[in-house]
This record gives sequence, C-alpha cells and structure tokens, in this order.
Amino acid sequence: MEIHDIVVIGAGPAGITAGIFAVRRSMKVVVLGDAMSLSTMEEASLVDDWPGMPGVMGPELIVKFREHAKKLAVPLMNEKAVEIRKKGKNFIVKTERAEYETRTVIVATGAKHRKAMVPGEKEFAGRGVTYCANCEGPLYRGKKVLVVGGGDTAATYALLLDQMGCHTTLLHRREELRAVDVYIRNLKKSKVKFIWNALLMEIKGGKMVSSVVYQDVKTKETKEIPMDGVFIAIGSVPSSELVKNLGVKTDEAGFIKADKKQMTNVPGVFAAGDCSDGCTKRIVTSTAEGSIAAEMAFEFIRAGNV
Amino acid sequence: MEIHDIVVIGAGPAGITAGIFAVRRSMKVVVLGDAMSLSTMEEASLVDDWPGMPGVMGPELIVKFREHAKKLAVPLMNEKAVEIRKKGKNFIVKTERAEYETRTVIVATGAKHRKAMVPGEKEFAGRGVTYCANCEGPLYRGKKVLVVGGGDTAATYALLLDQMGCHTTLLHRREELRAVDVYIRNLKKSKVKFIWNALLMEIKGGKMVSSVVYQDVKTKETKEIPMDGVFIAIGSVPSSELVKNLGVKTDEAGFIKADKKQMTNVPGVFAAGDCSDGCTKRIVTSTAEGSIAAEMAFEFIRAGNV
Repeated sequence: MEIHDIVVIGAGPAGITAGIFAVRRSMKVVVLGDAMSLSTMEEASLVDDWPGMPGVMGPELIVKFREHAKKLAVPLMNEKAVEIRKKGKNFIVKTERAEYETRTVIVATGAKHRKAMVPGEKEFAGRGVTYCANCEGPLYRGKKVLVVGGGDTAATYALLLDQMGCHTTLLHRREELRAVDVYIRNLKKSKVKFIWNALLMEIKGGKMVSSVVYQDVKTKETKEIPMDGVFIAIGSVPSSELVKNLGVKTDEAGFIKADKKQMTNVPGVFAAGDCSDGCTKRIVTSTAEGSIAAEMAFEFIRAGNV
Repeated sequence: MEIHDIVVIGAGPAGITAGIFAVRRSMKVVVLGDAMSLSTMEEASLVDDWPGMPGVMGPELIVKFREHAKKLAVPLMNEKAVEIRKKGKNFIVKTERAEYETRTVIVATGAKHRKAMVPGEKEFAGRGVTYCANCEGPLYRGKKVLVVGGGDTAATYALLLDQMGCHTTLLHRREELRAVDVYIRNLKKSKVKFIWNALLMEIKGGKMVSSVVYQDVKTKETKEIPMDGVFIAIGSVPSSELVKNLGVKTDEAGFIKADKKQMTNVPGVFAAGDCSDGCTKRIVTSTAEGSIAAEMAFEFIRAGNV
C-alpha cells in the first residue's frame, strides 16, 4: 500500500482548504468526504461573510471550493471514514470501501447543529427554520423570529437578531437562561421578549414558516403564535467520535483541542474547522485552520517525525 | 466627537475582513487604508490559494474584497494612521487629516518584504522579481530561478521551488545558511545549487528578467548568469511601529504578539494578519484573524470592558 502524507477527513471548507494547501506543497493527500452528510456551509442559505463574494449562497460556495480543489488535482473521494487506527508511526484510515495508510491525519469532520426534533423542523429547513443567526439573521430584519434555546448561543442569537432589527422572542424550557451574566444583562436592556418554561412542539406554515406551537411545561397548555423565522440554538455536536479511540483530547462539549498549529495531543493528528476548539466558527476561520493544518503537517513530516 | 467601537488600521485582507465582520455585528467601525502603500496581496501576481477563486490575481482579489466591504457599507477611508494614543479607557487614532476616538483598535498594518535594493529590482517587480515562492513559484516550473537569502524563508523557498520543478539556485552572502538544520539537510538532498559568499548586484532583462549579476565577496569578481525568476527572501518587516508607544509587545522580529482571540497584551488592542505573530502568513489566515479580532472586539465591548 502506497503511504499518503495526509488523509483529510471531511470535505467542508476546512477539509477542502487543507487539500488545496497540501497539493500546493506537493504532498500525497486524499480528502475523504461523505456526500450523504452535508457540511454546515451547505446548510446555510446566505453566506455574506466570505470576503470577495458578497451574497453567495452556501451550496454555491461549497461547489466553488470543490471545483478549485479539482482544478488543482486534489483527490476528493466520496468515501465515509469509519475508523482510524495506529500502525507503527503511521495511521490507517478505513472507509466503507478502502484503507489508506498515512503519515498524518487532518480531522475536519465538522459539527452538526443539535436538532429540536419537532414536526416541521425538517420540512421547513431553509424556509424559515435555521440554525445560524449570523448567517441568516439579516434575511429577517423587521420580521418575527423565535430563538429556541437557553445557553450562550441562544442568548447571542437573540441579541444579534434584536440588533439586526428583528422582532425577537426567545423560548426556553426553563425559567432562566444558562448564558453568561453579561448576555443576560444585555438581553434585559434589549427589546427581546421571553417565553419561559416552554417546549417547542411544532413548526407550521405553507411555503414558508408562519407559526409555531409551544407547550407551557407547568400548565400543559399549548399555544400557537405567528412567526416568520425559527432559530434553533440548542447546541452543536462536534463530529469527533472517530478520533476518540486514538486518545485525541476534546473539551467537555466534544470539540477537539488543537494548538496554534492545529495539532492535537496525538502527534501527527491535526484538527481543523468546526470539530476543533477555535474561538469562532466561521468559514474564514475553518479555511484558515485547514490551511494551517496542512502546512504544519508538511512541517511535521519534513522535520523527520515520520 | 462620536466614539467608534473599532478603528481598523490597514485595508488589506485582514483589515477589510475585520471591517466586514464588525459591520455584521452592527458596530461603529472605520477601516483606515493608505492607498499609497500596497498590501502584500496587491503585490502578488497569481493567488491560487484563496478557496473558490482558483487563479485569481492579487490586485483583482483585493478589489473584490473592497467591493464586498463597500456593499456592506463598511466605511473605508483613504487615510494613513500616524499615531495612536490612550485617552482614558479609549484610544485616539490620528490620521493625516482626522482624529478618531475608539473603544478598540485592530492593527492590521501588514508587513513589507525586505527589499534587496539593487538596480532592476523595482523595474522587474511582477516581471520576474518576486517575494513569495508560495504564490508565484508555480509560474516558474521548468525555469531557472534564483533565491536570494540565507534564512529559513530562503531555505523553504528553495526547497519549495525545487519541489515544484524549477531549476533552483540559492545565492547567499555568507558561506552557510542560517536556516534550521532540517532545511539544510533537505536542501543537501535536493537538486538546489548554491552560490556562496555572493552579493546580488543587479537584475537585468528586457520585457522580463533574463539575467542576474552578482559579486563574489572574496574575489570581488562579478558574474552574470541567465535567470528567469528572482525570489528575494531576505526577510519581512512587520509594520508594527505605530503601536510601540502603547506598549504593545512584539516578538524579536517585530511581529505583534496576539493570543487566540487576536488580542495583544494591551486590552482593547487587537492584531490581525501579517503584522501579527500567527504561524503562517496566508490570505486565509489573515482574513480569519481579521474576523476573530472583530468578533472578539465585539465581545470585549459587550463584556463591559469599555
């Protein structure tokens, strides 16, 4: 078996960029993407924060990224990685149909928004149901939006949407937020309204979302209120299971701990993008982390570590 | 005087992206760029590592970035910042024609390639004379290139160009490189040729570079040899003078020390892009750092620091 320099797991912004930078360093690389599992960028409708392409749509941008990679002859394989194990100093990455031996691994498996699992959520995804206030908030200026959740993300979504000029309501299953103090203080100063002790039960609409149904957890009453947008912010689930058996360290929420060079605690294993513990999760930061991981994997190999 | 949330100093990839992210957070921001001083990206001819735009040219990409910023109503001012000083918890940024009071400052002043200061260097810039092997190396595949310098950058340029299939010669004024051991070891294994104890004297050509003249420092003889490309790698000079009087810490080479949030040791002062001490200097990393600086400045203000 020919030994690869880098196997990149994941074909979102971080993984593709890692592939591009690896090829530019003449490294033997393969990028494994699972076509059945969309990257977060593909889920986003409007992407307005990728410099140079104002107003580009998520699915359009990921296609542009992949075309760029193909133009540079980055091998993109539609294969889902199912296992990684050590083999001497190297690693074996096993997919459903092949095995790759490699000197280094870049984990760019992304994260999934935690789903609310209510009727209508899936049906109205992209038509009023969204998971990213930063990406899609500007579409709802002047409209009625519901933020579902009670943590920092929900709090920042509500504050951001309020700032953006949305008529914002925050719905939470408890009586108070788990968010940090300053957010709570700022929410009190904002125009955001609250529905406490409530469970989202259903999202309804025609072509687009037009209302939500929730239940009061104390009285068990249900209510239906008109709504244009529903921002679900009940957490994100990093896809880091694959590297657990290697002993790769994650934080409490499951994000892979990476240093400034994007290297994990396991030499030769790098993490980039939404699965890693960077302080913001944006397309620009994911691509940067992918590029750093690839260039530092290059340095790692060149320094004679493998 | 109206108080700004952020004054961004520099209108290259880091500064413009900081402006975009600041406006998306509804912050009062201004981006100060000096039209007389090109960003490193503007100097680059081919940019092949900005995902989604294979083969875009540097000057074209910076225009796209600026158009994006304008579309989002980011105030881009053609003003050169000449001084920053504290005013209570805030800062005053003084330009040649105005003063801005601001809660935070993002320093995105970039870095300059150190120039060789020889005849022909300026005339053939972009026509055979270049400062970035990573950006422009692929244009010289199969051609004769000279790398000028003896440090890590020169060593990595020579290795990279050799890997890319250029006929590579490294010219250095001393008898050995100052580069780290592993690079020297790899250079010995490579096809790179060396000209030791030599000073570059002149770069000659017609439409494009066709030869270089150098002097042997021992014999004082001069020689002219045919050459297609000259990669000058004698260091980079971060533009960090402006923040020195604030007590902002830099490393030995003058790069501004920034943490994972891009904040410097001076609360409220952030650094992003080539002037900061990130481990790689790419357009993707500069834009990421700009975005992080803007979002962390937002958090800094929101947390009630100013």
